[in-house]
Amino acid sequence: MAPRYASSLRSLLAPLLLSLQTSFIVIYAFCTEVEHDVRVDGTTFSNFYAGTFQFFKAYFSISLAEFQDVNLMVILGFGFVCTFLVRYGFSGSGFNLLVAVIATQWAIILNGIESLYHRGKIRIDLRSLVVAELCAASALISIGAVMGKTNPVHLILIALLEVPTVKSIMLLHIFGAFFGLMLSWILYRKGSEQRFEKEKFDSKTGLFSMLGTLFLWMFWPSFNSVLVDDRTPGRKLGAVCSTYLALAVSAVTAAAVSVLSSPKGKLNLMHMQSCILAGGVAVGVSMSVIQQPWEAMTIGFTAAVVSTIGFRYLKVHMLLAFQCHDTRAILSTHGLPGLLGWLMHLILQIKDCDSHTVAIQFAVFHICALLITIALSLLMGIFTGLLLKGNFWRPPQDKKCFDDQAFWEFPHLAVRK
Amino acid sequence: MAPRYASSLRSLLAPLLLSLQTSFIVIYAFCTEVEHDVRVDGTTFSNFYAGTFQFFKAYFSISLAEFQDVNLMVILGFGFVCTFLVRYGFSGSGFNLLVAVIATQWAIILNGIESLYHRGKIRIDLRSLVVAELCAASALISIGAVMGKTNPVHLILIALLEVPTVKSIMLLHIFGAFFGLMLSWILYRKGSEQRFEKEKFDSKTGLFSMLGTLFLWMFWPSFNSVLVDDRTPGRKLGAVCSTYLALAVSAVTAAAVSVLSSPKGKLNLMHMQSCILAGGVAVGVSMSVIQQPWEAMTIGFTAAVVSTIGFRYLKVHMLLAFQCHDTRAILSTHGLPGLLGWLMHLILQIKDCDSHTVAIQFAVFHICALLITIALSLLMGIFTGLLLKGNFWRPPQDKKCFDDQAFWEFPHLAVRK
Amino acid sequence: MAPRYASSLRSLLAPLLLSLQTSFIVIYAFCTEVEHDVRVDGTTFSNFYAGTFQFFKAYFSISLAEFQDVNLMVILGFGFVCTFLVRYGFSGSGFNLLVAVIATQWAIILNGIESLYHRGKIRIDLRSLVVAELCAASALISIGAVMGKTNPVHLILIALLEVPTVKSIMLLHIFGAFFGLMLSWILYRKGSEQRFEKEKFDSKTGLFSMLGTLFLWMFWPSFNSVLVDDRTPGRKLGAVCSTYLALAVSAVTAAAVSVLSSPKGKLNLMHMQSCILAGGVAVGVSMSVIQQPWEAMTIGFTAAVVSTIGFRYLKVHMLLAFQCHDTRAILSTHGLPGLLGWLMHLILQIKDCDSHTVAIQFAVFHICALLITIALSLLMGIFTGLLLKGNFWRPPQDKKCFDDQAFWEFPHLAVRK
Repeated sequence: MAPRYASSLRSLLAPLLLSLQTSFIVIYAFCTEVEHDVRVDGTTFSNFYAGTFQFFKAYFSISLAEFQDVNLMVILGFGFVCTFLVRYGFSGSGFNLLVAVIATQWAIILNGIESLYHRGKIRIDLRSLVVAELCAASALISIGAVMGKTNPVHLILIALLEVPTVKSIMLLHIFGAFFGLMLSWILYRKGSEQRFEKEKFDSKTGLFSMLGTLFLWMFWPSFNSVLVDDRTPGRKLGAVCSTYLALAVSAVTAAAVSVLSSPKGKLNLMHMQSCILAGGVAVGVSMSVIQQPWEAMTIGFTAAVVSTIGFRYLKVHMLLAFQCHDTRAILSTHGLPGLLGWLMHLILQIKDCDSHTVAIQFAVFHICALLITIALSLLMGIFTGLLLKGNFWRPPQDKKCFDDQAFWEFPHLAVRK
Repeated sequence: MAPRYASSLRSLLAPLLLSLQTSFIVIYAFCTEVEHDVRVDGTTFSNFYAGTFQFFKAYFSISLAEFQDVNLMVILGFGFVCTFLVRYGFSGSGFNLLVAVIATQWAIILNGIESLYHRGKIRIDLRSLVVAELCAASALISIGAVMGKTNPVHLILIALLEVPTVKSIMLLHIFGAFFGLMLSWILYRKGSEQRFEKEKFDSKTGLFSMLGTLFLWMFWPSFNSVLVDDRTPGRKLGAVCSTYLALAVSAVTAAAVSVLSSPKGKLNLMHMQSCILAGGVAVGVSMSVIQQPWEAMTIGFTAAVVSTIGFRYLKVHMLLAFQCHDTRAILSTHGLPGLLGWLMHLILQIKDCDSHTVAIQFAVFHICALLITIALSLLMGIFTGLLLKGNFWRPPQDKKCFDDQAFWEFPHLAVRK
Repeated sequence: MAPRYASSLRSLLAPLLLSLQTSFIVIYAFCTEVEHDVRVDGTTFSNFYAGTFQFFKAYFSISLAEFQDVNLMVILGFGFVCTFLVRYGFSGSGFNLLVAVIATQWAIILNGIESLYHRGKIRIDLRSLVVAELCAASALISIGAVMGKTNPVHLILIALLEVPTVKSIMLLHIFGAFFGLMLSWILYRKGSEQRFEKEKFDSKTGLFSMLGTLFLWMFWPSFNSVLVDDRTPGRKLGAVCSTYLALAVSAVTAAAVSVLSSPKGKLNLMHMQSCILAGGVAVGVSMSVIQQPWEAMTIGFTAAVVSTIGFRYLKVHMLLAFQCHDTRAILSTHGLPGLLGWLMHLILQIKDCDSHTVAIQFAVFHICALLITIALSLLMGIFTGLLLKGNFWRPPQDKKCFDDQAFWEFPHLAVRK
């Protein structure tokens, strides 16, 4: 039976949302301006500006179509990937939307602090929206690990605490994955080794999440290329082609490894959804050093192998040995392919270096960047987890986990049952 | 049990569709040309033309990607928003497609009458297609109010009668909402106070309509910016950013208000679907005077509050007190946010006026525009409703309302049951 | 009960996928380069190149948005169109993805052989990806005919054998349809006259395939225009408008004919999904000679009539008289409208010819092109079918046809039932 009253929502969620949103509006009122607000002083300057603007448009700016591609991934892709649970579809897609829009508004402010200091205003244009949505994606990855065992207040606080610590768009998958893993470790519930009754998919919810997955898969080339500097002609299109090939190889390889590792010799739908994206994640991390199609394809192949094997064996192991109950398997979907991409970046960059000194310098820098990212994500994950632990935030009871009825009105079902 | 024979379709729908479509083809044969049909007389003119054309392209024309965004909203967004009813999904999406394509073809002719008079031909290009689809959107909003209680013949006649009276793209939401409300009043069925047995959603149909809603939500920035004149650099992108922010604020606010107004303190899926769009509607109406992000965000906030409270309390009130059975709650989804946007437009414009005279002139003009729009929509709605009342058009029986089996073949179900 | 072990997947699919993918990576390593790999020798050349590149970009190249539109159709559109079977959704969308990415990688190699001979490398850019996806679409059409009665090994072999014989993008629908028809004839199973138990749709799977259909419908204008040469200004946009109008007319006409031909006077969902696309297929074939909107609309009208009548009567006839069990009705969806488009092309071209000699020359050439395409598709279809017949490839047993459980793990269902 559904709980009669969702105390966590009325007394916590609504005040949190309203106060957050009001604060954002006040901050935006004093600190931001949109691009169309340009004032030009005279004809000469106007012409000059127009020329600059054209140049700017051609090489640096982000088109409406690219913005929409990223928006599709963040809102629809990540949202519908979370609908695979048989009774958690409304929460999966609805909470994803809430977290995405709050994290995006928050990230715009945080990313603009420097510009606020220098120019007095944060400029909002398609580029700042896209960068903010990429930061939001990091939070959306993390909440996948604790999905179903938290209430929306938890999810929003996670996003608020995680977004300020995302420092590198390149490593956002690794950051998000380890952050989420620590959360799931701290927020571990006793008895999770036995599967929750409602933690499963059926033939229809599997198709809904297939839809979300395909949107992520199809628009990953835009995701990886959107921030590539297009001053060198073709650099951006090269990123699109490399990512497409890596994704294609991942899809084929994930299917093969899923069959080989299955006791019954069958395909697993969850593998076909998580692991076909591995190539996109790995190539995204190592994009800047990929020169040839076969490099992208090899990375896609290795990433899919690592990701599928990780999903098959590591997910259970993490639960039983480390008490990390990772609902959406973000370790094998985002973490492992991200690490692989980082390694490939290192290898390919060193191979291209002319002198040993440069190579060693790069290696040290590259390894430090990873270690700092992982250390930061582990620490912040543990900190956030500890903050969210406890009954103050009113987490759903064990038997209400993975159930929409804890949070959503079902007027007609109530009448029937 | 399903009716054995759908008399309304065989004897009314098929002849109506065939005669309409044949007439359209004949009218198009004599009155239209597509853009590629340009004939140039010589090299000089050709060069001159090419230059003009480039200029035209850069500043006024609509790109393929923008056309596809609007097309996605009209066909997929509005179509899948109508699939929330548990047994009415085929009709919801299928009839939406039928009405959309007929209304678009019809609107192209009506919008081109002036150009037909001056130049002898109606030119069909992406711009005329987009404008026609926006007019069609107005009809798609109206039919939301009578969805489930009408047959497709009704819906097509509504579209044919409504499209010619849409005079202002800016006020199309207000026009569509009041038109639809009058229809639902005139076509009111006795006994509607007690809920129809099949007028409900379940966990799967809720996700289908969530999908449609997210498509509307994601592409609303394109919807609002598609007709913005781009001669001032950045004006269009400013519209995109403002709409995105307003939609983000709406999503957060709608969730908060839905929880606060719920007796059980829970979220309501229908609110999360209708009311997150309120910001897009309101900002669309007041787009031309919005200068700052916070203005768009405040409008989004207010619109979501008004829309969610309207959905929670006004929908039942409209049914019981005014006998308007508004299936898709178009009054609170499109009507109220549209009115709010109109009011904000008035306030912001007056605030910016230098002299009192100009301000009063503008206010009078602005109020008249609204009153004429509402009067026209109410009158046309009542006229259309009276025309469609009666058994000549064979409306579905009460117990066949909200049921696909009245209109669609289910060969296998028939065998089973 | 589901089979305990999917022998066809473990021993055939996994080795096939891994060896194929490894070979592709090796071939790509030696033979391909991506566009960004351009090396310029000096400043002068670089500037020269930049100018050329701009020109190239403006007129010949394919934008990221156009690539994504085609990608959406091939991966999501064709994938979700195949989800209409009540228990075959995972296979429908998953196998479609597998076949699409393998066929695309294979087609890039095959289409680049000439360039490999001349320049030593195959260049991979958005254009080559799009052309390869169009070739893949031909294979995706064919496998629709044998869907549900084959395993993924069959489907991949079909794609590998079909893609090299696709010679004309223009006639790919006709080629795919006749190829698939021959496959379904050779792979005919005794007893198929009686419907398979699971070959049916329900109210939810019908909506999933409606979603796929709408994506095909919405992006068909991009599909038809993507390879149109844009050197004549407006030619591409003309193709978009013509295709849109033809699709709109098809939707209206298919609904009317579906109702008229129904014994109960009702609409049929499968007609509304297959036959609304007929106009897009037919106009795609005859695109180059269409000058006026009404020509496109008339073609759309006729194509929808032919397609709907073909679906209603021909599908059963093909099964009973010719033993072709065409699961997705590709003959009436792609074959008949394609032939009609071919005929319209012939008529319109001859009408425009100035002299009889030219007209006759064109007619002979045009008829020969069709006959060669059909002969090739029939022969290759029969050859492929014979190769795939027999128990070596371990086709699913009759009672496991149209059932996901033959290929996919259902851990939780297994526990329950």
